[in-house]
Amino acid sequence: MSKELSTREANYSEWYNELVVKADLAEHSAVKGCMVIKPYGYAIWEKMQQALDKMFKDTGHVNAYFPLFIPKSFFSKEASHVAGFAKECAVVTHYRLKTAPDGSIVVDETAKLDEELIIRPTSETIIWNTYRGWIQSYRDLPLLINQWANVVRWEMRTRLFLRTTEFLWQEGHTAHATAEEAIAETEQMLNVYADFAEQFMAVPVIKGIKTANERFAGAIETYCIEALMQDGKALQAGTSHFLGQNFAKAFDVKFANKEGKQDFVWATSWGVSTRLMGALVMSHSDDKGLVLPPKLAPFQVVIVPIYKGEEQLAQINEVVGKMKKAMEAKGISVKYDNRDNQRPGWKFAEYELKGVPVRIAIGARDLENGTVEVARRDTMEKETLQQADIENKIEHLLTQIQNNLFQKALAMREMKTYTADSYEEFKRILEETPGFIMAHWDGTSETEQKIKEETKATIRCIPLNNKQETGVCIYSGKVSAQKVVFAKAY
Amino acid sequence: MSKELSTREANYSEWYNELVVKADLAEHSAVKGCMVIKPYGYAIWEKMQQALDKMFKDTGHVNAYFPLFIPKSFFSKEASHVAGFAKECAVVTHYRLKTAPDGSIVVDETAKLDEELIIRPTSETIIWNTYRGWIQSYRDLPLLINQWANVVRWEMRTRLFLRTTEFLWQEGHTAHATAEEAIAETEQMLNVYADFAEQFMAVPVIKGIKTANERFAGAIETYCIEALMQDGKALQAGTSHFLGQNFAKAFDVKFANKEGKQDFVWATSWGVSTRLMGALVMSHSDDKGLVLPPKLAPFQVVIVPIYKGEEQLAQINEVVGKMKKAMEAKGISVKYDNRDNQRPGWKFAEYELKGVPVRIAIGARDLENGTVEVARRDTMEKETLQQADIENKIEHLLTQIQNNLFQKALAMREMKTYTADSYEEFKRILEETPGFIMAHWDGTSETEQKIKEETKATIRCIPLNNKQETGVCIYSGKVSAQKVVFAKAY
Repeated sequence: MSKELSTREANYSEWYNELVVKADLAEHSAVKGCMVIKPYGYAIWEKMQQALDKMFKDTGHVNAYFPLFIPKSFFSKEASHVAGFAKECAVVTHYRLKTAPDGSIVVDETAKLDEELIIRPTSETIIWNTYRGWIQSYRDLPLLINQWANVVRWEMRTRLFLRTTEFLWQEGHTAHATAEEAIAETEQMLNVYADFAEQFMAVPVIKGIKTANERFAGAIETYCIEALMQDGKALQAGTSHFLGQNFAKAFDVKFANKEGKQDFVWATSWGVSTRLMGALVMSHSDDKGLVLPPKLAPFQVVIVPIYKGEEQLAQINEVVGKMKKAMEAKGISVKYDNRDNQRPGWKFAEYELKGVPVRIAIGARDLENGTVEVARRDTMEKETLQQADIENKIEHLLTQIQNNLFQKALAMREMKTYTADSYEEFKRILEETPGFIMAHWDGTSETEQKIKEETKATIRCIPLNNKQETGVCIYSGKVSAQKVVFAKAY
Repeated sequence: MSKELSTREANYSEWYNELVVKADLAEHSAVKGCMVIKPYGYAIWEKMQQALDKMFKDTGHVNAYFPLFIPKSFFSKEASHVAGFAKECAVVTHYRLKTAPDGSIVVDETAKLDEELIIRPTSETIIWNTYRGWIQSYRDLPLLINQWANVVRWEMRTRLFLRTTEFLWQEGHTAHATAEEAIAETEQMLNVYADFAEQFMAVPVIKGIKTANERFAGAIETYCIEALMQDGKALQAGTSHFLGQNFAKAFDVKFANKEGKQDFVWATSWGVSTRLMGALVMSHSDDKGLVLPPKLAPFQVVIVPIYKGEEQLAQINEVVGKMKKAMEAKGISVKYDNRDNQRPGWKFAEYELKGVPVRIAIGARDLENGTVEVARRDTMEKETLQQADIENKIEHLLTQIQNNLFQKALAMREMKTYTADSYEEFKRILEETPGFIMAHWDGTSETEQKIKEETKATIRCIPLNNKQETGVCIYSGKVSAQKVVFAKAY
């Protein structure tokens, strides 16, 4: 397979599709819309999981596991939820196959379920049905539970990581005694997501709330983090929902408060998914391949020997062995690629494609001089460094790269954030220089819907602590209290 | 809910069912046969996962993720596999629900799949279909991949952890250039499982191979580890399969060997599941509740203050704070339960039920004397220790408890391992003192089947490196080369 990628300039969409496959992150499976997450891609997802899981536990949450299947009737219990989720889902109707007279395998029609089971598209219903048995009194609250799981939403158009029929995610589901506590939890988890995106993924995000149109089915308020990709399209990277008492009422989950009175429980839910992998790729990568932030790279440093003959290789192996040990002692993950069936040039291209943050090359002259050649993936800069104290230099460099990626992505976002004072200007920006567009909106779903139909741009969010400033809606001309963030989105 | 459990003596089966629920490990869900794994149970499973995952990675494996769905036709490709797995599985036939005229939610018959999808009961077929694209040459081998996933097998009779419709597991799927390598991998992973069972779960196991009757559907040879529960019934705790070239042939996975000739790839698969949770509970626990080995306990030490008034509590808090910090610095996990809404006696019973390995109580007299009362869960022994250097004493105690649990389980197994020289004796042992029974068997499936039908006992395994000794089959009277391990099993 050729390593030549499409360029972002020529075809951003193709560039992304090719990169995900060529860098060994994921591929399409034999099942329509479902992906195989390959080991290199999965290793990045594992790093994401570890970091997020620690953040969840540090904020008092515990993990549990709820069934994959949801009885069909559960969906009907929360009216807006069913409208949002029951329509595109995988339905299990039978529980046995049999061999037909002609030898083929067919569904055994005698093994039909009394009630169909839905593969979870999200777990609010089965979880709140369970919480009814777990919550009696205020002493049982708050209940702070997270689940790592697979979910299925039947999608017609799929793209690796960004939109797949099955995907992996975590879903937090918490129960509280008061609305205030539940809202505080919703906001706390939004902040956890924003911190993770910025500090681990090096992706700057805008924190905000969704409009009614874009709200989670069953939520009172949906908070989100929105990131901007290099092509100027937005990507929703995580959501945190304040669910009010909707699910408690649907599943009759009450508690005795401190005064001994019965009340319905307050709820939140929040989730991020393997979609983050798509956001990571599209935020930093370039025409040579992936660019990974050091905190999420499966290995942060690759060392490639350049040698003639076994004797030179033996000398290099010895030097590298010491350097590797010293780096690993500092918690740096290092791969030494001394396979002899590929040339150094091939390896360089391979690790550029894979986005390894730092490459160290070491050859005969380096042996003589006590040096190595260090190349950083983000800027493609090379420098020759003394081997002595290499572990501290690399540690410092990795921090620099992590910060640089964030700053670069932030600068890109700022460059691509525009203000539109008229609908004409709004459309021209969308056409010519897509990005986030700050514009006045009259606050109605009708106007939002019309703009979406005419331009495909949606309101990504109303930023938290948004500046209040009276103006005129770009579409309707009606009075507006604030500008909101528009963009075309993944 | 009362904390009184059934006793093992009175009704072992009820004791188990109650304990799993009362100790907050798991409960039945609204979906028939599916369980909810509660936070305390899931925390133990997470510890198992961490330890196993490290062992897999230390032996060169990487994780990946393959689709939940398997096209129906894939099952037909490996003849013996379909017979074993296609018969009891969840079948997805539709991908949409709709609202009926009467307002109810029904399956949309227009959204019928062309080919039904099976929820994976195991992933050999989808994975080997994928490997075809990943393997061209011997350079691509070995391929050493593991997956953590949920699977579904439609079970009519279910029990929490031991047999559930959906369960969590890991499944390793490896590809090799030669039969020898694949067999070595199969054996290596069996050893990993045995080490995990003995060193982490403190459960002694017999390593062996399965007879043809009990072999995995599609395997050439199935290796297993077998443990003995306190009631004398066996539990298969993990299996590792040598699959020969069966799946490579079914899915046309060939590679060019070093000589450039095309050959089919050799395969293994191996798995352990949340069933291990059942084995853990049934190996060590007693009539007061769970007994957890320190290496898998969500917290290893609980500290309970015994005090009158705020002032005493403040003094105790200060002392405990220091002890807790010192223990945590040594990697010991500690919970301090100074909730004021429960009495010490209630807490003692609660943590006995939850199987916390070590309980430390500290009261007014301890404050004066600089002591604490230390109780170990495995033996229920208590002793008074000086606070000074408590972290080292507890560390030592935890090691002792871990070892003691293993030795106790080993002694139990040895006590319950019998030899039967005749079928009469065999049946009497099964009836009166169930356990592992070593007995001569003529090596035929027919005899094995008859014994199973008449006694419900099965051959658990033929131990590795089994002693070869000529004898007479207890059932048929025919010549036998060795004794094998019989038992009734979970």
